[in-house]
Amino acid sequence: MALRTALEFLAGLRDAREVYYRGERVSSVVDHPELGVAARHAAIDFALAENPKYRELAVHREGAAEYSAYFRVPRDSKDLHSRMKLTEAGTAEGATLVLLIKEIGTDALFALKRVLARSGDARGLERVEAFYRHCRDRDLAMAVAQTDVKGDRSKRPCEQTDPDMYVRVVEKRADGIVVSGAKIHTSCTPYVDEVIVLPSRSMGPGDEPWSLAFAVPAATLGLRLYASDYLHGTDDPFTRPISTNHKMVETLTVFENVFVPWDRVFFVDRPDLAGATALTFVEFHRFTAVSYKLPLLDTLVGAGIAVAKANGIDRAGHVREKLTWLAGYAETVRGLAELAAIRCKLDQGIAYPDVFTTNLAKWTFARDFHRAVEIVQDLAGGLLVTGPSGKDWDAPSVRPTLDKYLPGAWPADRRMAVINLISDLTTRVYGGYQAVLAVHAEGSIEAEKMALFRAYDPSHALALAMRLAGIATATTAAK
Amino acid sequence: MALRTALEFLAGLRDAREVYYRGERVSSVVDHPELGVAARHAAIDFALAENPKYRELAVHREGAAEYSAYFRVPRDSKDLHSRMKLTEAGTAEGATLVLLIKEIGTDALFALKRVLARSGDARGLERVEAFYRHCRDRDLAMAVAQTDVKGDRSKRPCEQTDPDMYVRVVEKRADGIVVSGAKIHTSCTPYVDEVIVLPSRSMGPGDEPWSLAFAVPAATLGLRLYASDYLHGTDDPFTRPISTNHKMVETLTVFENVFVPWDRVFFVDRPDLAGATALTFVEFHRFTAVSYKLPLLDTLVGAGIAVAKANGIDRAGHVREKLTWLAGYAETVRGLAELAAIRCKLDQGIAYPDVFTTNLAKWTFARDFHRAVEIVQDLAGGLLVTGPSGKDWDAPSVRPTLDKYLPGAWPADRRMAVINLISDLTTRVYGGYQAVLAVHAEGSIEAEKMALFRAYDPSHALALAMRLAGIATATTAAK
Amino acid sequence: MALRTALEFLAGLRDAREVYYRGERVSSVVDHPELGVAARHAAIDFALAENPKYRELAVHREGAAEYSAYFRVPRDSKDLHSRMKLTEAGTAEGATLVLLIKEIGTDALFALKRVLARSGDARGLERVEAFYRHCRDRDLAMAVAQTDVKGDRSKRPCEQTDPDMYVRVVEKRADGIVVSGAKIHTSCTPYVDEVIVLPSRSMGPGDEPWSLAFAVPAATLGLRLYASDYLHGTDDPFTRPISTNHKMVETLTVFENVFVPWDRVFFVDRPDLAGATALTFVEFHRFTAVSYKLPLLDTLVGAGIAVAKANGIDRAGHVREKLTWLAGYAETVRGLAELAAIRCKLDQGIAYPDVFTTNLAKWTFARDFHRAVEIVQDLAGGLLVTGPSGKDWDAPSVRPTLDKYLPGAWPADRRMAVINLISDLTTRVYGGYQAVLAVHAEGSIEAEKMALFRAYDPSHALALAMRLAGIATATTAAK
Amino acid sequence: MALRTALEFLAGLRDAREVYYRGERVSSVVDHPELGVAARHAAIDFALAENPKYRELAVHREGAAEYSAYFRVPRDSKDLHSRMKLTEAGTAEGATLVLLIKEIGTDALFALKRVLARSGDARGLERVEAFYRHCRDRDLAMAVAQTDVKGDRSKRPCEQTDPDMYVRVVEKRADGIVVSGAKIHTSCTPYVDEVIVLPSRSMGPGDEPWSLAFAVPAATLGLRLYASDYLHGTDDPFTRPISTNHKMVETLTVFENVFVPWDRVFFVDRPDLAGATALTFVEFHRFTAVSYKLPLLDTLVGAGIAVAKANGIDRAGHVREKLTWLAGYAETVRGLAELAAIRCKLDQGIAYPDVFTTNLAKWTFARDFHRAVEIVQDLAGGLLVTGPSGKDWDAPSVRPTLDKYLPGAWPADRRMAVINLISDLTTRVYGGYQAVLAVHAEGSIEAEKMALFRAYDPSHALALAMRLAGIATATTAAK
Repeated sequence: MALRTALEFLAGLRDAREVYYRGERVSSVVDHPELGVAARHAAIDFALAENPKYRELAVHREGAAEYSAYFRVPRDSKDLHSRMKLTEAGTAEGATLVLLIKEIGTDALFALKRVLARSGDARGLERVEAFYRHCRDRDLAMAVAQTDVKGDRSKRPCEQTDPDMYVRVVEKRADGIVVSGAKIHTSCTPYVDEVIVLPSRSMGPGDEPWSLAFAVPAATLGLRLYASDYLHGTDDPFTRPISTNHKMVETLTVFENVFVPWDRVFFVDRPDLAGATALTFVEFHRFTAVSYKLPLLDTLVGAGIAVAKANGIDRAGHVREKLTWLAGYAETVRGLAELAAIRCKLDQGIAYPDVFTTNLAKWTFARDFHRAVEIVQDLAGGLLVTGPSGKDWDAPSVRPTLDKYLPGAWPADRRMAVINLISDLTTRVYGGYQAVLAVHAEGSIEAEKMALFRAYDPSHALALAMRLAGIATATTAAK
Repeated sequence: MALRTALEFLAGLRDAREVYYRGERVSSVVDHPELGVAARHAAIDFALAENPKYRELAVHREGAAEYSAYFRVPRDSKDLHSRMKLTEAGTAEGATLVLLIKEIGTDALFALKRVLARSGDARGLERVEAFYRHCRDRDLAMAVAQTDVKGDRSKRPCEQTDPDMYVRVVEKRADGIVVSGAKIHTSCTPYVDEVIVLPSRSMGPGDEPWSLAFAVPAATLGLRLYASDYLHGTDDPFTRPISTNHKMVETLTVFENVFVPWDRVFFVDRPDLAGATALTFVEFHRFTAVSYKLPLLDTLVGAGIAVAKANGIDRAGHVREKLTWLAGYAETVRGLAELAAIRCKLDQGIAYPDVFTTNLAKWTFARDFHRAVEIVQDLAGGLLVTGPSGKDWDAPSVRPTLDKYLPGAWPADRRMAVINLISDLTTRVYGGYQAVLAVHAEGSIEAEKMALFRAYDPSHALALAMRLAGIATATTAAK
Repeated sequence: MALRTALEFLAGLRDAREVYYRGERVSSVVDHPELGVAARHAAIDFALAENPKYRELAVHREGAAEYSAYFRVPRDSKDLHSRMKLTEAGTAEGATLVLLIKEIGTDALFALKRVLARSGDARGLERVEAFYRHCRDRDLAMAVAQTDVKGDRSKRPCEQTDPDMYVRVVEKRADGIVVSGAKIHTSCTPYVDEVIVLPSRSMGPGDEPWSLAFAVPAATLGLRLYASDYLHGTDDPFTRPISTNHKMVETLTVFENVFVPWDRVFFVDRPDLAGATALTFVEFHRFTAVSYKLPLLDTLVGAGIAVAKANGIDRAGHVREKLTWLAGYAETVRGLAELAAIRCKLDQGIAYPDVFTTNLAKWTFARDFHRAVEIVQDLAGGLLVTGPSGKDWDAPSVRPTLDKYLPGAWPADRRMAVINLISDLTTRVYGGYQAVLAVHAEGSIEAEKMALFRAYDPSHALALAMRLAGIATATTAAK
Repeated sequence: MALRTALEFLAGLRDAREVYYRGERVSSVVDHPELGVAARHAAIDFALAENPKYRELAVHREGAAEYSAYFRVPRDSKDLHSRMKLTEAGTAEGATLVLLIKEIGTDALFALKRVLARSGDARGLERVEAFYRHCRDRDLAMAVAQTDVKGDRSKRPCEQTDPDMYVRVVEKRADGIVVSGAKIHTSCTPYVDEVIVLPSRSMGPGDEPWSLAFAVPAATLGLRLYASDYLHGTDDPFTRPISTNHKMVETLTVFENVFVPWDRVFFVDRPDLAGATALTFVEFHRFTAVSYKLPLLDTLVGAGIAVAKANGIDRAGHVREKLTWLAGYAETVRGLAELAAIRCKLDQGIAYPDVFTTNLAKWTFARDFHRAVEIVQDLAGGLLVTGPSGKDWDAPSVRPTLDKYLPGAWPADRRMAVINLISDLTTRVYGGYQAVLAVHAEGSIEAEKMALFRAYDPSHALALAMRLAGIATATTAAK
């Protein structure tokens, strides 16, 4: 019932889980040359809790008991702010890459608690509570499998030619249910303990078999994880100072007749809960998102400042303008994220960040990220893609030439370190990963806009405009 | 020692003040057909304090004494937030046009208190305190004359060919000083009680005569106010629902050998205080600015929603996208303004809004205002500039034709009311006034950027980037 | 059969036309204090043809005959380019305001020729040809009434509650047809000789009565013109250097049982021709639009440069950046407009500008116009809305003070002349007029986007992408 | 004296050239596993000339002689347009990656011809002409080394602490000169025949030793090429359909006491020619740039259309808006590039593209490229960075699962092919390469802006604005 160490976490991953990578079954993710990097990145979460510097933030004490602060159910603005700082700290330790093995899982559990409490489903709620205590007390790592593969986007689940395009119940038994189908873009699945499965959209009549939420251990019979190798390649810490040691892995998460015992089934056959669960989950998860984006944004700002100095151009007017824009962008996201916590609401005794403000922060982040990348690349210069390799750097026959010819206002080693940081962040695979996450993770930009539109309360603005136009508002106030 | 009524305020303006309008001396601003509109607009400030709905917000009680809440020296975040709400309420009552007869004056007084207290100038501080009590206890209206006419922008005051390009001391006497020169863009001067004069820039050695701050009554010998007629024309409330009854007036404010008694001279011959005063003033005044912009932004959002409904296009995808952008823009400004209050700092016992966050709010407002105007015009349609006049509307021979042919999803009267609101806000002289204020008032966009750059603390971002680049930061952390 | 003089044109407008302005019937538009300004502005078209400097461009010679070059049917790229230069020259003489009394009419006639020739309607074509010769040989001015008042935007003409929401045939007689309904936003109607009426949208089965095109003299019984007073106010050439002497007037154009003889009916009961006519018309008219926008853009660029010099800021980095953007914007529109002529196509022997390129030019113009306005206002400063009136300027008691205090790097008179030019162009009613025209005239921005999407031929780009993706394109090349 | 085949070209690269890659000397670039890819990519240039489809475009006939059309000195607009189409065709065959082994070299030679002819340096001109014939008649491949490593950006060459920061003459001998220093970002150097060296900036008094232009064979004693490995990694054509087989290589190009015979020295000790050469070179080279960007832009547009179809979202309003923007962006660049050829000027008998229009095209390309990338990523979805690897795809045990779960509106194989094309183009190293090239190659965005500002002729716009402001222009027309 105590916090686990990073080593205990890693040891726990050596089980029968069925993981595939580059066409082959992986015997142990921890010991795999590439997946092991991701597992050790995730383990930073546990190291943090052991680190005196972060202990206050990362560990929650309740009487004699201690558990990871991610599991603390937020009751007010302060709790949400603390959760934000914890996510931010973990990501900063993760070198701009979120750890995400407790953040997203607790986002899902808080959402399930609210939805089931609201709906009055006492049995479902108790199952969620039990599972929550199970994870909390054993200090488990969790993935959330939400996005279905979807097939034909214009059709609902029950209208698809292949019923497996959304995960579904294929059989109900006395002791549990059997599910099939696949989820996509599931983060961290190969190196967590539990996989929580949520619906990815609202459902309607006829969609009953697809309207379910449940959890299974990662090592469950029939659960097959096909890991993307997108971030592979780890040989050059000189040019990839971040991504050589930090990695996240997404899977195509296939359920082939997976048995789920009833106490792990949070709801099933409930089209009425599907959309609510999806929306309530993102109310928490987008707040997690804007929290974990902050170290990335800070690093872009800091790297922009550093490379402007390294190149000797930091006093130019256009450079100051660009740095000002970068800082303004990053701090707008931070400010709005903090404000979302300050403006929190209560539902079923659980505090959640203000929906409009959270989405405003997320949308602000998403729509200008590529512009931020462009500016940092602009400040850094062509060496981002024409510079020397780590092997050049290490070669005694080459290095003096590089030391002689590559300085700017800073010596070559410091200048190249900053340039390579930026190259890793913006031009190589890790840069592409972050760019795509910016426009797609936790909902696309279009989904953000819809969420903003829905969450906006027009009554104040509309009433003011109608009054100034001299029109009585009674019949027109409805959105 | 009591609050004045609107009528008392207006009566107080009938004095010997020297105001010129359209080439002629004005005998009474209150009774002037155009300037009187502006005076009555300003009087809303006093009406607000009498209005039970706003009394709590607008009136400060200190024991038995009561005074306008603008004079309350902010001590914490709550005070700043209350000041923000008061400014917002006044501007909403002013139909998107700020009242500005106490906001800016108290901004200046709080700044002078801080600067003089910081500098240890006990005598100057006591004069400011005395003048502050004078204004507060008599419930006076104040203008702030800051922007000098400047002449050659590349030269400092003492380098100008004509020494009057910045307001200056021309004589020092036993009982006071004599000043000459001119300020430009001074708002509300013709209809306030007192004019506070601040330096508009930092000064250096040689600039002593131009380094001064003082106050004089509006009706002071030698003080001549040349009022711009920019917003003139009040004949058509149908097409100008806002600006027919609401107006602000700026003056070229000329000091021709104006005598200022010593107790009204806050400092003189202090180049070291000039820049500090200018900067400290805008620390308050930009917060006032983002507070008073909110009703304008809300009205744009509300009018955008209303006209989309009136035109029957509110369900189109591109319309929702535009409305979402508008709401996101307005709420980002509001959110950052609120956050500036929440993050307030203390100096000399006076709370002031966080400088970076205030400037972030202001910059966000300024750089997207024209885009907001474009979107609202886009939603409204060509009738903004091709519609009927008020005289058409009132003509019994014409009106039935308009009623028949001008409806959309709303009947003609309601639709035209919204369209004319937008026309007044965006295409006619009042619209142009707000557009220019957006990019120039309380500092230009370039000044905003410089303020942001200066106020940004790069240490956190730079340290993170340097750590991730593997570089020790000791020698590079300086901005 | 000769070209008319400006005076002959103005004399021709003194007829029985039924024009209403500010609630009253106008006895003579030429002699009306406000509408007369617009009529004289339009007359510049005729003055141009008399001016030796423009004669070559403005007059077409065909053997002994001479006629306005607007009537020259374009046969190649050179003709289109010449038409572009003529439109540009007329608008430059019109001080950035298009003359539009032959441009739009010939756009409509060329479109009708193409549509009717294509459809094989020999009788309709002959009527168009006869009407074209009538206008050309008498050197007539023409308006085009196209935009219907539309009523409920979600419904087709035949579905509207009030059938008059689109102009329609109410009776067919042996000698002609009788039409009713109203058009909106019709430019120049009060001071042209002929009004050409086109459908504003595609029609379908059931819309027969609304599917017609015809022409009537402006002075026709039952044709009532309700003129907008949007640009009224002409008293101050100091602050309104352009709009005091240049004006365009739009009308609500009401047809109340207007009789149209058969030789003026180009088609009727032809839903199949309605959409084609509307689209073909804008193929010419958007080219006219981008031609007449060029002097406006050039003036913004030139005024931006001039005011930067006048204010003494033209060497600042951010000012150069802004001027570069302005010039780049204006020249991109010009370049694409020229290219649209160069890439012209032939239909029925008539050359028309490339549709995609024309729309690209128009879209480029429209989506950045407000940004251009913002930049010029930014460069000009607050005097745009706080400066002196013409009466101040003319008052001997005031002028010396203005001369002393309003210079920058240029003396006050030159500086204020440039600032007032910008104020007229961007902050006063004329500025608002141009801003709304930018997003709505000749089709809204959304209409532009749809036109661009439809006109884009994706085959080259799609084939290249498919080849690089290694996919055979046969089945996917369709847009 | 004939055209060479691709094989002849490759054979010619097996010489004593001194190339370093990943810390080691490369014995043969052609046979090197990574550099060989780049050499074969370059060889497409020769294959094109052999391809009947392109022969007309790629081969110039002069009497009996035939040579690569890149060497044709442009005499008019048609020649420039043909050069543009050839560059575009080569890049399309190169799968969006320019070949650049004759384009840039002839850009440099045309520039040298113009500069030396203009300056009246007959001897220098004859050396250029002789070298030009040498390259043309032997069908040689050329790199241009221009960008110096620069050291302290705030200092001129003669002010640098280390004189080698710009390439310079270290000794003059009877038979030639000896040069030292280094160039950076030199493209294609390891696999060309000749290296042309140009100054990278304007020079002044004292900079004589750095003011030189010359050419040497790639295999010259003392010339050392340090090749960047930025684009390395070729193992997965599934996820990298372009960059597995197409590559360009940049070098740090070090001259260590390299001897250059006089007939290869085009000028030396001529600070007056340095800036002119740099500027004249980019007059051609930026035109080359906008020509070779077109296939990249077309591929982004085509891939955007394809992936919208593949995902089944091509009918959504926001998707059409995004595709319209993409097409408009690509076609604006193409249109302006074509116009630059149409508006060409003559200098010394050589036609060169209009400078302002060329820079306008380049600037338009550069400032919106990241936005285009964002849009295409937005349309494509998260599979860009979470999708299967080529080894997954090829594994019989995995493939059926992918075939089942990864279809959208297109089957999995076609959908993944398009998604991987986009991933290669925008999220992996090749995507980063193109993104950085967009903002830095052929001059940074800031350099573009300066070039635009310099090339813009303000006289027309300024005269129009001054006339409308009522100001005589004589004294103010100067820029």
